[in-house]
Amino acid sequence: IGAVVYSMLTNDIPQAESPTIAEKDALLKRESGVSTQSPMRLRMEAFLKKNQKEIVSELEKVDGGKFHIDTWDRPEGGGGITCVLQDGKVFEKAGVNTSVVYGRLPRAAIQKMRVNHKALNPDVDSLEFFAAGLSMVLHPHNPNAPTVHLNYRYFETADELGNTNSWWYGGGCDLTPCYLYDEDAIHFHSKIKEACDKHDKDYYPRFKKWCDEYFSNKHRGETRGVGGIFFDDLDDTDKDKEQLFSFVQDCLSAFLPQYLPIINRRKDMPFTDAMKQWQQIRRGRYVEFNLVHDRGTAFGLHAPGARIESILISLPLTARWQYQHVPEIGTREERLVEVLKKPREWV
Amino acid sequence: IGAVVYSMLTNDIPQAESPTIAEKDALLKRESGVSTQSPMRLRMEAFLKKNQKEIVSELEKVDGGKFHIDTWDRPEGGGGITCVLQDGKVFEKAGVNTSVVYGRLPRAAIQKMRVNHKALNPDVDSLEFFAAGLSMVLHPHNPNAPTVHLNYRYFETADELGNTNSWWYGGGCDLTPCYLYDEDAIHFHSKIKEACDKHDKDYYPRFKKWCDEYFSNKHRGETRGVGGIFFDDLDDTDKDKEQLFSFVQDCLSAFLPQYLPIINRRKDMPFTDAMKQWQQIRRGRYVEFNLVHDRGTAFGLHAPGARIESILISLPLTARWQYQHVPEIGTREERLVEVLKKPREWV
Repeated sequence: IGAVVYSMLTNDIPQAESPTIAEKDALLKRESGVSTQSPMRLRMEAFLKKNQKEIVSELEKVDGGKFHIDTWDRPEGGGGITCVLQDGKVFEKAGVNTSVVYGRLPRAAIQKMRVNHKALNPDVDSLEFFAAGLSMVLHPHNPNAPTVHLNYRYFETADELGNTNSWWYGGGCDLTPCYLYDEDAIHFHSKIKEACDKHDKDYYPRFKKWCDEYFSNKHRGETRGVGGIFFDDLDDTDKDKEQLFSFVQDCLSAFLPQYLPIINRRKDMPFTDAMKQWQQIRRGRYVEFNLVHDRGTAFGLHAPGARIESILISLPLTARWQYQHVPEIGTREERLVEVLKKPREWV
Repeated sequence: IGAVVYSMLTNDIPQAESPTIAEKDALLKRESGVSTQSPMRLRMEAFLKKNQKEIVSELEKVDGGKFHIDTWDRPEGGGGITCVLQDGKVFEKAGVNTSVVYGRLPRAAIQKMRVNHKALNPDVDSLEFFAAGLSMVLHPHNPNAPTVHLNYRYFETADELGNTNSWWYGGGCDLTPCYLYDEDAIHFHSKIKEACDKHDKDYYPRFKKWCDEYFSNKHRGETRGVGGIFFDDLDDTDKDKEQLFSFVQDCLSAFLPQYLPIINRRKDMPFTDAMKQWQQIRRGRYVEFNLVHDRGTAFGLHAPGARIESILISLPLTARWQYQHVPEIGTREERLVEVLKKPREWV
């Protein structure tokens, strides 16, 4: 009541009184559902959730097991759906998550983001933001079958009236084999290159390189795997919002054709105990990258109130650290490490 | 020759011409060995190496297996001895390392260190430094037997004439059980408290608290284990160098009496597969602390030319990440987590 009186007296609408974008979006969804006329926030959320369902359903067909599904809400608006399949027939651990976050960015975060997004207002104490993403990591049991990671996300900030201020897309996908089959790496890269090429011939080479640079265990002088694509901060300095949404849709839609043929031809191959042990050592490197270098994981682990179990779902079920394990010359294990030390062009 | 001519002309000794402390120490050791008259650098190094030998020998008696020993040199001076016992009878992985480093601190590092050491000269581009430490992590097979970690170190900087400028000691020890036996925690803390009390009655309570704060998986709201002591930057604002050396000697000498009775009464206890699995999950938390929060590990992994295998020897041989594993009410697993969420006073 004090605030209402104040606004009558001063003829100013105090900031707390104008609806947040979380409130606006909840109202819009309730009243008119989601269509191509809706704000991108709602369209991206709907697109991600539809794809999550489809991917989970296809992976269940591959595995034969069922995902466990946790749905959670954030008190400030938004929430997530965490789908996990643990100790399945094909997958040691598979996580397919969507999350939608409404919140306020503190001044320090705004300053950092301004490096890539000049439209952000540097003169405010905080900004409302929206973030939606789908992220997935699949760790198969069979050492012949590669781990795969994927993440696509949309980020937006609003001014004090709730109008979109800055926005951008980010994401990518990458493949991490323990035993390298060239045909798998070539297939994985070809499919995502097709999706990229439909939108911009420069995208694949640019984002392939970015992926090799980002997913790197610098302390080991190795990439995490054989790469794929990675991009961030794609905004209207690159293409308009519809074009970029269409690009991200094509990338995410490429996933099942990218990965299903690979997992299907590897999941039942015979393997030895020694191969399983090598896989466990490579899993250790995966943990090293995610906990030491990955910016998304670091951000999540240090964010107050973050859902730790959803963030760390990316870690394998089991991993191994063996002092000075060096593959023997001329083995397949050694060949993998050679490729990780010097990323190749696959297509 | 150019430099010699230059120094004759200007009657100045150019910096590059004065011997480094690495050169001075090498000469001193060769000519007169190490005695109580030697610089602290050489005394600390000798003390650490003597203790490393003794600890390795006692742990071999416990395990029945032999440590693998790697000795390595640094081109700039110094080097290390890495002792590892992997897949032993008692220890899944045991690492006992000493390292001695001579090098130059860049300006940015000096600025950071000045927060705690005002005597450091802020007006130089770099400073020569010396660091020596012993660090150890023992991960036993038996889930009833706790993991233990210990580290004691000495750090020194020299001015351009090679005279000691700033110096300090750091270190500590801490115990990480998967199954909590109060008597073990009480024994471990009592022994290190005895060592502390001989030197300063305030040390144990101060360093016990510091340990609980430092060895904390903040993202989980849990300490890593049941603690011990931790201290850093102990210099002449606290006590003189001889007194602190004597304190650190007593701490390190306390280790075998601290840990041997515990490992000996736990190593052969019966355990179930479920207990082993819980141990693997707790090992995962150990990896999380070391890779996400530990400053020493982060420093090592980002330092150019660091010996990664010696740094990551602290990681367990195997670990597990299971989505949302929550111990059942009233179990020993639950009791451990309760204690880690709210550190106790053990003595």
